Amino acid sequence: MSRFAPLPDPPYHAVIFSSQLGPDQAGYGEMADLLADLAAKQPGYIGAESLRDSHGYGITISYWRDAEAVRGWKQVSTHLMAQKLGKTRWYDHYTLRVACIERQYEGPDGR
Amino acid sequence: MSRFAPLPDPPYHAVIFSSQLGPDQAGYGEMADLLADLAAKQPGYIGAESLRDSHGYGITISYWRDAEAVRGWKQVSTHLMAQKLGKTRWYDHYTLRVACIERQYEGPDGR
Repeated sequence: MSRFAPLPDPPYHAVIFSSQLGPDQAGYGEMADLLADLAAKQPGYIGAESLRDSHGYGITISYWRDAEAVRGWKQVSTHLMAQKLGKTRWYDHYTLRVACIERQYEGPDGR
Repeated sequence: MSRFAPLPDPPYHAVIFSSQLGPDQAGYGEMADLLADLAAKQPGYIGAESLRDSHGYGITISYWRDAEAVRGWKQVSTHLMAQKLGKTRWYDHYTLRVACIERQYEGPDGR
């Protein structure tokens, strides 16, 4: 499976989630898998790109067709996180940015 | 040093660069460091968040004050990459998206 999300014609939206996990990561992996599965089933989902290093720092970018799709995803993910995060508090810190993709390209040329 | 870029008031811009390195990564680390140093000295630079895994897949997001700052950075980085990439061809594949950050938040609450 490609680790690159598709490149539909702009404009479309991105949710950029940067996070630092705390020392207690029990259950986090299952939660992240569940979130990724749920995202992929949401209306307007385009794709996602994700990485986490051995220090627990991670970046996940999910791409969405329009603002309505971002709102729908926020509702679903916030609900799920609220259910789970109260118990476990995986994140030491996170930032979430909602962005509109304006232009793009891919490379390198000729490959 | 924090791995989280600052969160100035939106709107501001992001350059999302996802890439897969090929097998020959000689010199890539120095190049990436040089690019990061150059970026930080550019007018309108806000910050960057970056990760690469052991398979050579990476995500780097740089944040910029406005469209002019993005253009300036594109000029500098394209020039440098053109000088170097012709020789070494580090990337098997990459995608680059230019986005406008519309809103944001950070968490978790109370930390």
